[in-house]
Amino acid sequence: MKTLKIPEATIIRLSVYSRYLTEIDRKGIVTISSGDIADGVGVSPAQVRKDLAYFGEFGTRGVGYNVKDLHRHILKILGLSSDWSVALVGLGNLGLALTTYKGFRERGFVITSIFDNDPKKIGTVLDGVEVMPIDKLVEVVGKNKAQIGIITAPSAVAQDIADSLVKSGVKAILNFAPMVLNVPPEVELRNVDLAVNLEVLTFNVASQRY
Amino acid sequence: MKTLKIPEATIIRLSVYSRYLTEIDRKGIVTISSGDIADGVGVSPAQVRKDLAYFGEFGTRGVGYNVKDLHRHILKILGLSSDWSVALVGLGNLGLALTTYKGFRERGFVITSIFDNDPKKIGTVLDGVEVMPIDKLVEVVGKNKAQIGIITAPSAVAQDIADSLVKSGVKAILNFAPMVLNVPPEVELRNVDLAVNLEVLTFNVASQRY
Repeated sequence: MKTLKIPEATIIRLSVYSRYLTEIDRKGIVTISSGDIADGVGVSPAQVRKDLAYFGEFGTRGVGYNVKDLHRHILKILGLSSDWSVALVGLGNLGLALTTYKGFRERGFVITSIFDNDPKKIGTVLDGVEVMPIDKLVEVVGKNKAQIGIITAPSAVAQDIADSLVKSGVKAILNFAPMVLNVPPEVELRNVDLAVNLEVLTFNVASQRY
Repeated sequence: MKTLKIPEATIIRLSVYSRYLTEIDRKGIVTISSGDIADGVGVSPAQVRKDLAYFGEFGTRGVGYNVKDLHRHILKILGLSSDWSVALVGLGNLGLALTTYKGFRERGFVITSIFDNDPKKIGTVLDGVEVMPIDKLVEVVGKNKAQIGIITAPSAVAQDIADSLVKSGVKAILNFAPMVLNVPPEVELRNVDLAVNLEVLTFNVASQRY
């Protein structure tokens, strides 16, 4: 985990705020208060103001925030002003689920390359993208200028895949394989463990018991 | 989002620490310092001590923590002292990926019921669990005493499924459908948006540019 001045929880909330602002903007609402945002996403108004204050002054006291400006600014902070080209490696059930996940495309994450080593999958076309063998990864990812790699392959091959992704020039890797990967410090790495989500729930359920 | 005294980021780190302690315990190591844990998972030693301090005093100054005791204690805090019975609703690619996800079983989450409305899927058996139609949900979940429901169904039917899960008596719902669900306050709800993970990465990549 990299030490950042901005807490990760703030980044995650910014992501939540921006989804809410998309919705509000679609409704044609022009200005919004921190209290409205807070109500809409279920955090305190003070938290909204604190999160936004990391990035300078946005709102006008007593008037609130201009929805479009705030939305655009948050997207810029999150690095979402333009699309990202994504390579996905490992077309098991999870890989398949992610290639068809609408939430990625909506936020500007476009899967431009897909890799798997199963001969039955190689050559098939998903959403306009042809599945390629993993030994073509460095070549294809480089050609497609993918900036992010998603690893949904088994643990046994995950480090080799990470090495190839790094070699191909990606800036960030999202890893679903349940293992610790080594990548150079200039490459951002994030591990997703789906069980953690269940543990936040069971912590809350267990706390209620006391 | 429920206001908790313990920050969610702390819960998530406890989950990470406990995985590391599983590994350390397997190696036969008896005591561990906060510095060792910090190195192992990539946070600062002060953060480890602060996180553990929420739950009272564990370690002995200059000696460190007993690995087994600390591990047992963290699992208890996370509500993982015993198994949880889980019902999964929606057997698309993501649902399939989760039913075969080893990380759940390892942490004590046992999928005991699976539901889908596709006639081709109903009656098939996955890991010993027969896929049932969604209209049997209340009956089957009640009978299997599932405490957690996972929704991997499309948004259009997610609220109806949440209502049925609540009626069947689950204590917590993990929702992968990209929509806001309404559940009574006594039921813990967590929404998973897989794109958020990519946005934490793009925030970090974008920050490096400045």
